[in-house]
Amino acid sequence: MAKIANRFSRLKSREDSGFSSNATGRFVNKNGAPNIKRTGLSNPLEKYSWYHTLLDLPSWKFIFFLVSGYILANLFFASVYYVIGIEHLTGIDKSTPLHEFNDVFFFSSQTFTTVGYGRIAPVGFLASLVATFEAFLGLLGFAIATGLFYGRFSRPRAFLKFSSIALIVPFKGGTALMFRMAPFKNNLLTDAQIILTCAIEDHTEEGNSKSKFFTLDTQLNTINSLSLNWTVVHVIDENSPFFDLGEDHFSEMDIEIFAQVRAFDEVFSNTVVQRTSYASIENEIVFGEKFNMMYAPSKDQKTTVLNLGLIDSYIPKKR
Amino acid sequence: MAKIANRFSRLKSREDSGFSSNATGRFVNKNGAPNIKRTGLSNPLEKYSWYHTLLDLPSWKFIFFLVSGYILANLFFASVYYVIGIEHLTGIDKSTPLHEFNDVFFFSSQTFTTVGYGRIAPVGFLASLVATFEAFLGLLGFAIATGLFYGRFSRPRAFLKFSSIALIVPFKGGTALMFRMAPFKNNLLTDAQIILTCAIEDHTEEGNSKSKFFTLDTQLNTINSLSLNWTVVHVIDENSPFFDLGEDHFSEMDIEIFAQVRAFDEVFSNTVVQRTSYASIENEIVFGEKFNMMYAPSKDQKTTVLNLGLIDSYIPKKR
Amino acid sequence: MAKIANRFSRLKSREDSGFSSNATGRFVNKNGAPNIKRTGLSNPLEKYSWYHTLLDLPSWKFIFFLVSGYILANLFFASVYYVIGIEHLTGIDKSTPLHEFNDVFFFSSQTFTTVGYGRIAPVGFLASLVATFEAFLGLLGFAIATGLFYGRFSRPRAFLKFSSIALIVPFKGGTALMFRMAPFKNNLLTDAQIILTCAIEDHTEEGNSKSKFFTLDTQLNTINSLSLNWTVVHVIDENSPFFDLGEDHFSEMDIEIFAQVRAFDEVFSNTVVQRTSYASIENEIVFGEKFNMMYAPSKDQKTTVLNLGLIDSYIPKKR
Amino acid sequence: MAKIANRFSRLKSREDSGFSSNATGRFVNKNGAPNIKRTGLSNPLEKYSWYHTLLDLPSWKFIFFLVSGYILANLFFASVYYVIGIEHLTGIDKSTPLHEFNDVFFFSSQTFTTVGYGRIAPVGFLASLVATFEAFLGLLGFAIATGLFYGRFSRPRAFLKFSSIALIVPFKGGTALMFRMAPFKNNLLTDAQIILTCAIEDHTEEGNSKSKFFTLDTQLNTINSLSLNWTVVHVIDENSPFFDLGEDHFSEMDIEIFAQVRAFDEVFSNTVVQRTSYASIENEIVFGEKFNMMYAPSKDQKTTVLNLGLIDSYIPKKR
Repeated sequence: MAKIANRFSRLKSREDSGFSSNATGRFVNKNGAPNIKRTGLSNPLEKYSWYHTLLDLPSWKFIFFLVSGYILANLFFASVYYVIGIEHLTGIDKSTPLHEFNDVFFFSSQTFTTVGYGRIAPVGFLASLVATFEAFLGLLGFAIATGLFYGRFSRPRAFLKFSSIALIVPFKGGTALMFRMAPFKNNLLTDAQIILTCAIEDHTEEGNSKSKFFTLDTQLNTINSLSLNWTVVHVIDENSPFFDLGEDHFSEMDIEIFAQVRAFDEVFSNTVVQRTSYASIENEIVFGEKFNMMYAPSKDQKTTVLNLGLIDSYIPKKR
Repeated sequence: MAKIANRFSRLKSREDSGFSSNATGRFVNKNGAPNIKRTGLSNPLEKYSWYHTLLDLPSWKFIFFLVSGYILANLFFASVYYVIGIEHLTGIDKSTPLHEFNDVFFFSSQTFTTVGYGRIAPVGFLASLVATFEAFLGLLGFAIATGLFYGRFSRPRAFLKFSSIALIVPFKGGTALMFRMAPFKNNLLTDAQIILTCAIEDHTEEGNSKSKFFTLDTQLNTINSLSLNWTVVHVIDENSPFFDLGEDHFSEMDIEIFAQVRAFDEVFSNTVVQRTSYASIENEIVFGEKFNMMYAPSKDQKTTVLNLGLIDSYIPKKR
Repeated sequence: MAKIANRFSRLKSREDSGFSSNATGRFVNKNGAPNIKRTGLSNPLEKYSWYHTLLDLPSWKFIFFLVSGYILANLFFASVYYVIGIEHLTGIDKSTPLHEFNDVFFFSSQTFTTVGYGRIAPVGFLASLVATFEAFLGLLGFAIATGLFYGRFSRPRAFLKFSSIALIVPFKGGTALMFRMAPFKNNLLTDAQIILTCAIEDHTEEGNSKSKFFTLDTQLNTINSLSLNWTVVHVIDENSPFFDLGEDHFSEMDIEIFAQVRAFDEVFSNTVVQRTSYASIENEIVFGEKFNMMYAPSKDQKTTVLNLGLIDSYIPKKR
Repeated sequence: MAKIANRFSRLKSREDSGFSSNATGRFVNKNGAPNIKRTGLSNPLEKYSWYHTLLDLPSWKFIFFLVSGYILANLFFASVYYVIGIEHLTGIDKSTPLHEFNDVFFFSSQTFTTVGYGRIAPVGFLASLVATFEAFLGLLGFAIATGLFYGRFSRPRAFLKFSSIALIVPFKGGTALMFRMAPFKNNLLTDAQIILTCAIEDHTEEGNSKSKFFTLDTQLNTINSLSLNWTVVHVIDENSPFFDLGEDHFSEMDIEIFAQVRAFDEVFSNTVVQRTSYASIENEIVFGEKFNMMYAPSKDQKTTVLNLGLIDSYIPKKR
């Protein structure tokens, strides 16, 4: 592979990728996040922004987090009222200890949510004081939940579907690498811009491996209105690090392509960014004939129909 | 029309419009949204961002959505309490089943809104448990409503009125295409920028039709402060795809002009974008003499009055 | 003044100011808003964005708006309950009609705020139904208030104080026009940028007056960190429309200077814009020797003290 | 030191730093805020944006602010009810004045939080009226708290750790000044950009000291993805104001380096800025051999581990 290493040294490699040339494993995960762990903080929790974490949580986990927080808070306050003594609460059903605890728990929930029916109400000083703070905490908790809900659904996102594979196809007498993306929601992206970088592991003479980074030129790097799919085309010519590489090279070498799309979302009125990566070692860079069309006129010829199910559809290479 | 097709091939067409050259129907709806349908998602709901949808809803639909959600939630919980048994609630008027259900419904609403008068209150375990979760859901529901209200009214928008027609008028010895826009609310737009693209359907020799896209140059493409109306002027010279096209061409050919305005809103402190389109097949591109002035000094000569009712007012072509 | 008119015709006037050349009165009010009225909308309320309006309201007016809305809502609902009949509410003090109405009013407020003590509670169907909607409306009202509060205090603003006058002073053998600004709050502005435009009323031969617009060059048009005051300097040389104009010209002619500052606020992480204008007819452009320094080292030499009270302080012209 | 002063006069100094050339003390505090005090406002509170202040407060101070506000509000309203007379409240425990005040306090808190159990409830006109406004104020208070919570945790921040020192090290035959930064949270920064400025105190012949500002060039001034650490390198060549300066110069002279990093955060979808400064008089600019590596492949070779504890780790100068 010495010849390949030589070619790479002729091409100008990219210094500002921000990735380490002697990192191992995938650089960028399929979902676009960098594959990096952080250690060495005196407080290990400091490496998490709890807000970022709660924003990234899937909906069901987020709901679970809220519900379990609500139950735990009520169990905690119910225990406090129970320890203080149920004689400080009016209207408790004292038939059995279980009934007692149930009623104390429900009193707690009626306080935390500020329902406060009053069937059960605090009379003593301590129970009243705890209830004073529980209601306050409840309201603050819902204030925070309000912010989290808003933060989650107002968070500007690109809502792009990328093809899961990048395709190397015959193109104008040579070859080109292509992948595509399409917006899948009713948002509206304009002035979309693509930045394409690749990392190629280069084996040094000492047997170590070092990655080199190259910018991949694309035919179009901006698009005015991203309403249909966008097929990004990198022509593999002598300026491409992939020039003369065959299928066997891609299966043997450790090649990773990072794509970053930046666009303006007209509903959020904000810039949004989405990323993905294609790694040869995961068979995400394949050889084929061409991608199939994803859209067609509607039957009534009044509109265009974009079929997102076809995003990975391509004609395989003839053998 | 071969001659026209030839001219189009001489002009450099725009590749990055993001629209399909073999799409049918209008490209951009009058309100600026692209005329595209999406299919092929395994979950058909995935193509809607419910937040974007609720943000775009007209106010009365949004209010209707909230009110009916409130009523449905209370009907649901009322049914649950009714099934659990009204003996688990104190203070219910048991004179008739209808009175029973009414009181159960009102108990539900008093729980959901956390009013909790206490005239009706849960005593049994199950009813208390359901009430515990209803109050929680109610608060989360209002937390979400808070976010939606804020999202709706804080959403940066340009609040521009476009003239509903584009006018082709005599201009400095030749002709020019003009349309205009004006801000109609008390927001403040600066550094407005226009991007003008046109699509012209070109008939290929095989009888198929393919659209070509061209950038239309404008006399001014930025304006420092968009406080009065802005008349966008595209001079029709030899660099324009409309050069030598007469009224009959515009009525026969399928020509569509997309306008995208981007500006900075000083109240939202955010970039806002608004779009519209003018389609010849909808008679939105007309020939005339000139637009009438939209503004005049006030009677006391202290301010300038902008009359938004005149935005479409023009002098028709003399015949 | 023919000579002056000639000079203006030699200088390149600015076409993209967005202001009308035949408008009357001040173009930009002192607070930066354009001096324009809007008419001609079928719905006259359409010209107000109520959100923009409530955001711009002074605090005391905003509080007054909320409090009076609260009182009016309660008066309305109290009247509804009163009409329905106080026999549909338990616990009403029926000693006098006034007492009745008081208790109905307080019941309404306890429902609207969802306090719901329960001393007064609805028993009949109609009163319960109205209470169901009043509590819902109350919560939505506070949801909207939450959004308005957040919108008001999170609204990115530059918090700049401009000198109320622009000064024409001797400068490097010639003269220069200067004004200054300083941030007066604990926000942090970086990459501040100034755009300076002037409008000069030019008298045409027919006796009409038309304004011409010119860009005024400044010595520095960006500044990296706007933490002290910034004195903007426009050198009056042969490229300036003010070249050779004396004090009498400024007092006779209608000259207005618009300043627009754009900066990045590091606390809001947002671009902020602030504007002002200096009009000669309001004596806001004066001749003087120089501005006095606004800042000095602190006594302990550890920090710099910026005195915002000196922003308009200058040495008058020696006569 | 005349020779050094001469060199500075040969280099082009920066005029647009926004800092005063005759200010004293540190220009920028270590946390990036400018070292400036403001006076001269007619209302001294006007110099604080209370929203900015509450956003910058450490969490524990913010919680303390909320809790003490809650207690004070309740003490105030409890006193008002007490003065009005406890006979206007039902259900008060009148055994001792302390019990009375306790119950009035708890009634206040039950009103402020809108719990409203109803065990204690207002009956008289005045107490009902005060309760009407207390519940209103309570809801507005929690509306404001909701906005503050959201403002605090949604505030876009860079979450960068800077090395506490800048290092001057041997570099390619000469020397270079280096410092580094690393993101320490699970946010995602792209298109990071650095602006490096230095201030050098220059002694004038009259014995006064004046600071001069210079832009420091960096090897890379943008980086595509800031996921690992970024070592900023300023090569000390003849274009650098530090050319030929030795350790003794740095310990004697008053040199301060300001760094401003601007990046796009993909979670907040917003531009974030962070700043720091290195002052020679605080020994924050030191001479050494090199920084130690901060990252290494993980044991399973699947990811890269970034050790933030090593950010200040360097090899000291051999003597």
